[in-house]
Amino acid sequence: MVGGGPGAFIGAVHRKAAALDGGMELVAGAFSSNADKSRQQGEALMLDPARVYGSYQEMAEKEAALPEGERIDFVSIVTPNHMHYPTARAFIEAGFHVVCDKPMTTTLDDAEALCRLVGQHDVVFALTHNYTGYPMVKQARAMVREGRIGTVRKIIVEYPQGWLSQPIERTGQKQASWRTDPKQAGAGALGDIGSHAENLARYISGLEMEALCADVTTFVEGRPIDDDVSMLVHYAGGARGVLHASQISVGEENNLNIRIHGTEGSLQWFQEHPNYLYYRAGDGPEHVYKRGNDYLTEVAKHNSRLPSGHPEAFLEAFANIYVNAGRTIAATLAGEAPTAFDTDFPTVQDGATGVHFILTALESGRQKGWVDAQYTAPG
Amino acid sequence: MVGGGPGAFIGAVHRKAAALDGGMELVAGAFSSNADKSRQQGEALMLDPARVYGSYQEMAEKEAALPEGERIDFVSIVTPNHMHYPTARAFIEAGFHVVCDKPMTTTLDDAEALCRLVGQHDVVFALTHNYTGYPMVKQARAMVREGRIGTVRKIIVEYPQGWLSQPIERTGQKQASWRTDPKQAGAGALGDIGSHAENLARYISGLEMEALCADVTTFVEGRPIDDDVSMLVHYAGGARGVLHASQISVGEENNLNIRIHGTEGSLQWFQEHPNYLYYRAGDGPEHVYKRGNDYLTEVAKHNSRLPSGHPEAFLEAFANIYVNAGRTIAATLAGEAPTAFDTDFPTVQDGATGVHFILTALESGRQKGWVDAQYTAPG
Amino acid sequence: MVGGGPGAFIGAVHRKAAALDGGMELVAGAFSSNADKSRQQGEALMLDPARVYGSYQEMAEKEAALPEGERIDFVSIVTPNHMHYPTARAFIEAGFHVVCDKPMTTTLDDAEALCRLVGQHDVVFALTHNYTGYPMVKQARAMVREGRIGTVRKIIVEYPQGWLSQPIERTGQKQASWRTDPKQAGAGALGDIGSHAENLARYISGLEMEALCADVTTFVEGRPIDDDVSMLVHYAGGARGVLHASQISVGEENNLNIRIHGTEGSLQWFQEHPNYLYYRAGDGPEHVYKRGNDYLTEVAKHNSRLPSGHPEAFLEAFANIYVNAGRTIAATLAGEAPTAFDTDFPTVQDGATGVHFILTALESGRQKGWVDAQYTAPG
Amino acid sequence: MVGGGPGAFIGAVHRKAAALDGGMELVAGAFSSNADKSRQQGEALMLDPARVYGSYQEMAEKEAALPEGERIDFVSIVTPNHMHYPTARAFIEAGFHVVCDKPMTTTLDDAEALCRLVGQHDVVFALTHNYTGYPMVKQARAMVREGRIGTVRKIIVEYPQGWLSQPIERTGQKQASWRTDPKQAGAGALGDIGSHAENLARYISGLEMEALCADVTTFVEGRPIDDDVSMLVHYAGGARGVLHASQISVGEENNLNIRIHGTEGSLQWFQEHPNYLYYRAGDGPEHVYKRGNDYLTEVAKHNSRLPSGHPEAFLEAFANIYVNAGRTIAATLAGEAPTAFDTDFPTVQDGATGVHFILTALESGRQKGWVDAQYTAPG
Repeated sequence: MVGGGPGAFIGAVHRKAAALDGGMELVAGAFSSNADKSRQQGEALMLDPARVYGSYQEMAEKEAALPEGERIDFVSIVTPNHMHYPTARAFIEAGFHVVCDKPMTTTLDDAEALCRLVGQHDVVFALTHNYTGYPMVKQARAMVREGRIGTVRKIIVEYPQGWLSQPIERTGQKQASWRTDPKQAGAGALGDIGSHAENLARYISGLEMEALCADVTTFVEGRPIDDDVSMLVHYAGGARGVLHASQISVGEENNLNIRIHGTEGSLQWFQEHPNYLYYRAGDGPEHVYKRGNDYLTEVAKHNSRLPSGHPEAFLEAFANIYVNAGRTIAATLAGEAPTAFDTDFPTVQDGATGVHFILTALESGRQKGWVDAQYTAPG
Repeated sequence: MVGGGPGAFIGAVHRKAAALDGGMELVAGAFSSNADKSRQQGEALMLDPARVYGSYQEMAEKEAALPEGERIDFVSIVTPNHMHYPTARAFIEAGFHVVCDKPMTTTLDDAEALCRLVGQHDVVFALTHNYTGYPMVKQARAMVREGRIGTVRKIIVEYPQGWLSQPIERTGQKQASWRTDPKQAGAGALGDIGSHAENLARYISGLEMEALCADVTTFVEGRPIDDDVSMLVHYAGGARGVLHASQISVGEENNLNIRIHGTEGSLQWFQEHPNYLYYRAGDGPEHVYKRGNDYLTEVAKHNSRLPSGHPEAFLEAFANIYVNAGRTIAATLAGEAPTAFDTDFPTVQDGATGVHFILTALESGRQKGWVDAQYTAPG
Repeated sequence: MVGGGPGAFIGAVHRKAAALDGGMELVAGAFSSNADKSRQQGEALMLDPARVYGSYQEMAEKEAALPEGERIDFVSIVTPNHMHYPTARAFIEAGFHVVCDKPMTTTLDDAEALCRLVGQHDVVFALTHNYTGYPMVKQARAMVREGRIGTVRKIIVEYPQGWLSQPIERTGQKQASWRTDPKQAGAGALGDIGSHAENLARYISGLEMEALCADVTTFVEGRPIDDDVSMLVHYAGGARGVLHASQISVGEENNLNIRIHGTEGSLQWFQEHPNYLYYRAGDGPEHVYKRGNDYLTEVAKHNSRLPSGHPEAFLEAFANIYVNAGRTIAATLAGEAPTAFDTDFPTVQDGATGVHFILTALESGRQKGWVDAQYTAPG
Repeated sequence: MVGGGPGAFIGAVHRKAAALDGGMELVAGAFSSNADKSRQQGEALMLDPARVYGSYQEMAEKEAALPEGERIDFVSIVTPNHMHYPTARAFIEAGFHVVCDKPMTTTLDDAEALCRLVGQHDVVFALTHNYTGYPMVKQARAMVREGRIGTVRKIIVEYPQGWLSQPIERTGQKQASWRTDPKQAGAGALGDIGSHAENLARYISGLEMEALCADVTTFVEGRPIDDDVSMLVHYAGGARGVLHASQISVGEENNLNIRIHGTEGSLQWFQEHPNYLYYRAGDGPEHVYKRGNDYLTEVAKHNSRLPSGHPEAFLEAFANIYVNAGRTIAATLAGEAPTAFDTDFPTVQDGATGVHFILTALESGRQKGWVDAQYTAPG
């Protein structure tokens, strides 16, 4: 692991998610750019001190120098956004597979460079758009593919939070500090959570954006980065969309949710109640699909651990990204072909598409109008 | 009553709403532009045949000719939209008070002419934006005014329906036919329900629109009018908004809902579950306010009929528009001043603002960009 | 109307419910046993003073003496419980049809006497167990009859309220005063709301009770009547049940709800969210049936006024009892046979069954054990 | 671990729960009474074959013979119920701490013998009534203790499931087979889930049962054990209760839920939506407490891992039993005093109380009447 030092939120989440199913073990890390803090975190995690490093460069180099079978199988990158690219690059060039937090990079050049690097070095690269790990999100995607809602007409995807409604970054709150710093984060609400919304809508609907018109706002005075964004979207094939993400919506916690309306039916899912998927066909009662039941599609069942009514939640969904990426890495290491279930995780191209989305939305906000949003990532 | 012939939906709703509290009686009507149908409806309603008219002109003229105390006190206009203006004009000029369905007119000229007529003839004019009649909507408005959510930052107002997702207007369905005919309806989803969304947001927040950017779509092939609209909004004072309304959102019934986020708290209300209002302040648990309780504001209690837990719904809210307008009319007839509770109904200026909103949104859709949305109605 | 004087809750509800559809008119009343109060209420309701009476006896006698076509068609009895019997008797003997509030009487003798009187005088008698007036309750009943849940195994019916958790009857609150007075009410929570729960379960399931074991409690010190009851129930055919009703459940408003589990499926309905019925078959997703849709059974559509998504609530359900009883009365007056839809209202036999249930549960509470609950009302 | 062989549900849950926070490692096991199956499972779990045993006796003996620091710290017992006692006894006598699944034993003698053994050998014994591990259950308990609902009057605790509505035990379904076998399970729905309901109510309310009257039913023909139970309960201090548990309630998944009504307020919690706790005081709006927020009590925050809106669920709650028991075991091993947070897990006395409850309810069902339910476990 690179990043995830003392006080980091997402590093601990990655560790729990990776450990959940017993198939992965954390054996090495560069937990902080401060070597002391890195060492301190390594101790807390009961790691071999020899494998706790003071920098990502040192770690990439020294792990690569270990004999096969002793070195790490892959690296998990959980630093602030601006460090994703150099870290990933160092490990890919050293031949390691990568699991990386999102948004993938802060510039499109970096994102596209990563796409090419992944192709050149033939490594597995998984991006933790963790919300697509939920079984009922996979159920939704499968139902769209099966034609259960017909042709998609309208997509409403929302990601409101309220935790940045006051300038808590000035109190030294670590999460708030780097996420509101343009140098470390790139974009604010748009990058941190808007990119999850974009990814979720694309994952379920299978549709690419053609154009968008964004209203990008900073509500908290003095904050140098956006904390609220709303946009209109045109998707390929004629679907229309609304996407909004906010970190100043007081009272909202982590309310990512999506509605997809097609010619024949509709789907609705709420991250805060993730075990349920609402399906409505044109002329019958609403159906509530519940995780853990036999009537679900194979992919939803494959990504589920507990019986129905025994709720799963955020960690299990996050773990699904790790499990699937891990199986793909294991297959690759073994020279075997991963299954379609194994490769069901966000790729480096998804990451580049997300970065392009963020930059396009910022540009639309500056221009105050519609902009072209079409994009195909290299590789 | 003018309009509301056999098969009309909203006419029957108006009649039930007006009758609910026993203070109003339907005594005369021109229920259809077809004199036979008007007579037939008059019979069904057990009216005196002498007061069932073949046209609104005849009705305005003959009712005005009746002695004071025998003529109608006010007229209720429930025709298709394009007939609101000439009908209202005829009755106002004959000295009658008016309750009129929305949207008020199909052109801004007509709307502004009505504003001036109402002022000149000093009549009471109430527009049935019925959703503002709900007690918990009034509770929300009161809480915003009391500063319970601080300064408004973001407003999300949605009005999805699905009943026009297929071209049912071609099957002769009466509701669908006139509502998708530009001549009778003016605008489609935007006019029929988008205008309710605009009115609801303005009623609760007290904020006027400054600019908007709308995406106006017709999804059903061959339909000559919009059936879906999404827009970004800038409100006076810096608040941002998203408003979307749709009649092709399969599975949605009549899901008008609103969220208002302020600097200090948030409010959320759903028309399909109208007895509840959700309030979240920055740092405490969510509060669920329920209709019928002592802890509510006076205006919410004043507009409520039943104890808590005995749900009220659509008809009671609609009736509140009639009750309040009726009390204002009664006070006016008696030469007395109505109370602030009495005058709590949408006015002719609200109607003109709504028409301006509809036309501005259509213009924005045509221009594919932001347009100025500021407006002050005459009078 | 007999009863429903100033300050009475249920009298006003009856009046609004009866008036809702425009087919009934209140023309006479004995609104209070205090002649002054009765007169005062008559004035408030703008009745002809000649038809506002000082006692039910006077009203029954004088109305009966009016020529046919001028007298009332039926009487609506909304007094405290102990007065239902003598009032109903007087009007039935005078040849009038009756709509009567529940519980029907305070003794089984009175209840059975009413059954016989109704039979002897061949009048229509409707009891306002208003909750069975909800369209989705009728939908549930139809689905049970159609075998959609198989053989019923378990019924959970609950009716918690909290409004009597403190001794508010000592503050002079009128509702609380008579409802906690054994002489006027007969039983407390058990009679007032437990009887609704019993009726609802029987109406939907079609099952009669065979035995019950009740725990009858008075929580508020000094209150001379039960304010909480829980019971186990054995139904005919082997189904088991739990029924509990409470007026001291702080925070509950009027949360009547029922779950019926059969061998093949289950149904669930909540009075506070009355437009929805939840259906779960053994091995598919949950179905949410929503009022106002074409896919519902005929009886649910027949008892519905508004389109889907335009919520109906308590008053409409109450009105359905009046509408159906009114149609049956009208048919009877016209010498015609009412339809099955018309006669869908609680009868005098339902009333006697309810009284038997109340007295049996009280007896079980006293005996602290299971008692036989089988009963067939006369007539 | 003893038990948890191939195909076992709860064994895998225990393993994931124990592993979640990285503080425990599975190092040895006797996974099945069939030595081959045990070995097979040990391999699947990548354990040292030397520490995979063919029987619990062998495991207890051989682990005890290992040098300190190499042997297991505690044993986790996840066998069918009838094997809990001999297994626990063997390990306790060998000096090991124990985590044991529920219900603790199938006889009261065994349960009380365990209480005494735990006392004599001074070991830590934790019972996995996992539902008390939920943070919002702990919040509820803390609020009751703080007097937020006043004196408890009524407790409704329900645990409906539907998975045994058909005789699936005859199809060889492993879970169903042993859970419906009186020899292995002791009791059916009553023992499997009724005991969770009892424990949850006692944990939150702090109240002991005084008397109960149970209706114990077997609905599926030929099943030799109860599959449905409903009961009335008298608690110490005058509170009344209803407890029902069922495995034939078609459509229900794992719907454990509880409502506690006091003189001043009420609390409500649903296992299937575990991040929310509903609190209603007498005269204000309902409060929705949400996991992960600062306004919660210390114990709720202490037992929480993720920020608000990032839902936690079943596994985290289960893990909390392990974490707390693990900390108590670690403190004991280190000769230190565990904190009050550490010792917050169900004890051997809770287990004996649960067994007494099960047997008492079965007795009440046989007697068809109220029975004394008072009990104090030894030790």
